[in-house]
This record gives sequence, C-alpha cells and structure tokens, in this order.
Amino acid sequence: MTARSAADRLLDVLGAFEQEHPALTLTQIAQRAGLPLPTAHRLVGALAEWGALERDASGRYHVGLRLWEIATLAPRGVVLRQAAMPFLEDLYEATHENVQLAVRDGLEVVYIERISGRSAVSVHSQVGARWPLHATGVGLVLLAHGAPALQERYCAHGLASFTPFTVTDPAVLRRMLAEVRRTGCAVSDRQITDDALSVAAPVRGPGGDVVAAVSVVVPVAGAQTSALVPAVRVAGLGISRALGRQPGSD
Amino acid sequence: MTARSAADRLLDVLGAFEQEHPALTLTQIAQRAGLPLPTAHRLVGALAEWGALERDASGRYHVGLRLWEIATLAPRGVVLRQAAMPFLEDLYEATHENVQLAVRDGLEVVYIERISGRSAVSVHSQVGARWPLHATGVGLVLLAHGAPALQERYCAHGLASFTPFTVTDPAVLRRMLAEVRRTGCAVSDRQITDDALSVAAPVRGPGGDVVAAVSVVVPVAGAQTSALVPAVRVAGLGISRALGRQPGSD
Repeated sequence: MTARSAADRLLDVLGAFEQEHPALTLTQIAQRAGLPLPTAHRLVGALAEWGALERDASGRYHVGLRLWEIATLAPRGVVLRQAAMPFLEDLYEATHENVQLAVRDGLEVVYIERISGRSAVSVHSQVGARWPLHATGVGLVLLAHGAPALQERYCAHGLASFTPFTVTDPAVLRRMLAEVRRTGCAVSDRQITDDALSVAAPVRGPGGDVVAAVSVVVPVAGAQTSALVPAVRVAGLGISRALGRQPGSD
Repeated sequence: MTARSAADRLLDVLGAFEQEHPALTLTQIAQRAGLPLPTAHRLVGALAEWGALERDASGRYHVGLRLWEIATLAPRGVVLRQAAMPFLEDLYEATHENVQLAVRDGLEVVYIERISGRSAVSVHSQVGARWPLHATGVGLVLLAHGAPALQERYCAHGLASFTPFTVTDPAVLRRMLAEVRRTGCAVSDRQITDDALSVAAPVRGPGGDVVAAVSVVVPVAGAQTSALVPAVRVAGLGISRALGRQPGSD
C-alpha cells in the first residue's frame, strides 16, 4: 500500500459523511468508503485520535471539532460568510424572506449561509448543500459570470429538469445568462420547485471577479420581483465592498 | 511506509493550517508538517484533488470548500451553532454587547460563534479560537459541569495568568466552580484582559449534560452584572430547548 493510496483511503473515510449520513457506525463507514473493516477501523482510529471524527455514546462516529476548526479557515466558507453576514441580516430584515449566500464548485452551487424566517417559503437549500447551476438564481449568476468554456461545458453536460418550468434548452439558458450579465441580477422562476422564485445578484472579490452570489427566495404567488432586485443588488455590492472590492466599475 | 503513518502524515498536512497561518506555500506546509518536500507535494496533491485544499493564483494553499462542507456536519460546530443562532441574536439585541457560544475540547474552550457590535468591548476570542477554561466565563461553566476527574486534572495542570486578577490558586478556582454550579451562571471578571468581564450560562443537551456555554462580554467599567445574569441564563435555556432539552430540572 503506497502513501498515495493510503491518503485517498483516509479521504474516502471522511467523504463517507454526508448531509444524509452525518452519523455512521464503523461498519457503515467501511461500506460507504469501500474499505475492508480492519482498514476502516485503523483509519477511523487515526482520524478520531486527531479529532477529525468523534465517537458518541451509541458508538456512532460524527465529524469532529478539530476538523471544524480547520474548516473555519476556508476562505470560501467561514471567511466569506463572516464578511457577508451583516448584509445578509440587513436583507432578511428588509424582506423577511429566505436569504442565501452561495459559491460555485465545479458545475454546482454550494450554499454557504442561509437565513430563513418562520413565515418564509420552504426551500430545499441547506448550508453545505449542492444544486445544479442552471436551476437556481445564485447558480445563474455564478454561471453567467464564469468563463465561456465553463458555460459550454455546462450546457454540453445536459440540463436536469425539476419542474415543468425548468429551463433545459441550452439556447434558452445562453440567452438567460446574457440577460443576467446585462441586468446585474438573475431571476429564477419555479426552476426547482413550482411555488418559489429567487432573485440573485453577484458578489465580487477585490479583483472584480464574481466569487459568490446572494439571493432572496420568495413564494411565486405575490412575488414583487421588481422591488426585490434593488435590495438584492445592494446586498451584493455591500458584501463585495466588505471583501475589499472598490465600488464603481461593475 | 504503513497506512497508519501515511494517515498521520496527511493529517499533519491539514494541521499545518491554523488561524495565524491560513494560507501556506508548499514549502511552508512541508516545514510545518515536518515532512520532506516530495512527500508534502504528494499529500497536498491528494488533498487538493479531493477538495480539502485549494490553490490560489499566487500558488499558496488554503483550506478548501469540500472540507468546509464536511465540517458543516460536525454536531459541535455548525449544528450547535444553527440551533443557537436565534437565541444569540436575541441576546445581542437585548444587550448590544459581545455574545459568544463555546464548547470544551480537552482543557480548552473553543468558540463556535460570536456576535459583536461596533460599540462592544474588544475581545480576544475568534470563531475557532481556543482559550484556557479557568480564565473565561464560558470555560468556568464548562469546567464546573465537567467530571470531578477533569477538574482535578485541570487544577493539577497549573493555572496560567493573563492579568493581575486571573485566578491561579486551585483552591479559589474550586470554590468558584461550586458557586457556578449553585447559581447556574459564571462571572469572569478581568481574567483575560483587565478591561472586560463576562457572564456565562450553561447549554444542556437532551440528556441534561452541559454541552456548551453562552456568554456576554462587557466592559468592566459600568458593567451591570446582575442585569446580565438573567438574560444570559434565558439564552442558555432557550438554546438547550432548541437542542431537545425538556425544561424543568436544571
């Protein structure tokens, strides 16, 4: 067994933990990581001793505090979230709807933060969850400002459908992306569920590149899209400024 | 090289990233992890490919998004924080002072969340940061409700001094811990800096065990300690309830 394969096996053990499977027995870890039980036992032991995993009273393993501490250093996780939080709270205060912050990873959006009110529409996003780019407002923003090669790869990859309204035609998607770049915001209407609409705007880093997107998700019935657009754009500009972006040339 | 040592080396690479060192070159990683450069190169490659590390334009490595996503599953990190957040916000709204949530790891407190106002006293805690138990309000709560063996081990370990007011006498600390258990809250007066005071209360899990502590940090000058105590205790009870604790027998 080389160091290379041992490293991959260790990462496979960590990768066994997912939102749907946050607590696992040793046997489950071995199965999910595709490892013999003795190998899983040894790797879980190393991870637990280091603090990457913790064992509860029932014998199941959870992600540990030390891994969380190291993850707080991720620039696109906690660091971005801390810069954005005051603006997300302002946006929530102004709308009392679901407010979301997301980044792109490959062909998906990953939600970094979400503030939701008790009366807000139910949404499927969770912190740490992933969704395809074309079906979400934040994803449209991130795709629209991505490299042309990314957009081509995304369209070639096939566009999954979630509701009768989901855009699955690459030509339509390309027109929408051009519109997002032109207007500085994206409207995603019933693309993931047939009762919700989201309005999203870009967040730019110090160099002007789009590093994240912020959105508000509202019920389709009675949605005041034109009133939400300026609020979401202002939040996006505010977060960009907090990240060191000089105002002006968007 | 056995799988065991390869696993430890990979974790040493991750452990090279700290609050003071969130971005590292390959050479720095090798030095900090105590590894030959080719070994560090191979392990960093495996971590980057998996998404645990990300490389920026300048060639430095940061903690990656995928590690952050897995860390969102840590029960004592993001999960606790999400349950606590509304109560921390209420407490901030009621006091406009620094509000903190912390858990114990070994002989230290780790801060899970912090809300601080612009006008609040400057504090040294950061999310993911560690402090000794005896010098902080949250630490006193966590130590007071820890096992007697933990308290003995802590006192035997020597009590570090940060200000002329820091309690360093184990006998005095033991009396303070008894008082914390009796009153249901801890007051830490100028123990870490000579201008701040914190009031802390326990957060209990569904089984009644103390799993975290919540506190407010205020300037010593003009501190209304007796008025803060009920507010902090109410926040602690609220978070406990959100975690599934039945009200009553505290």
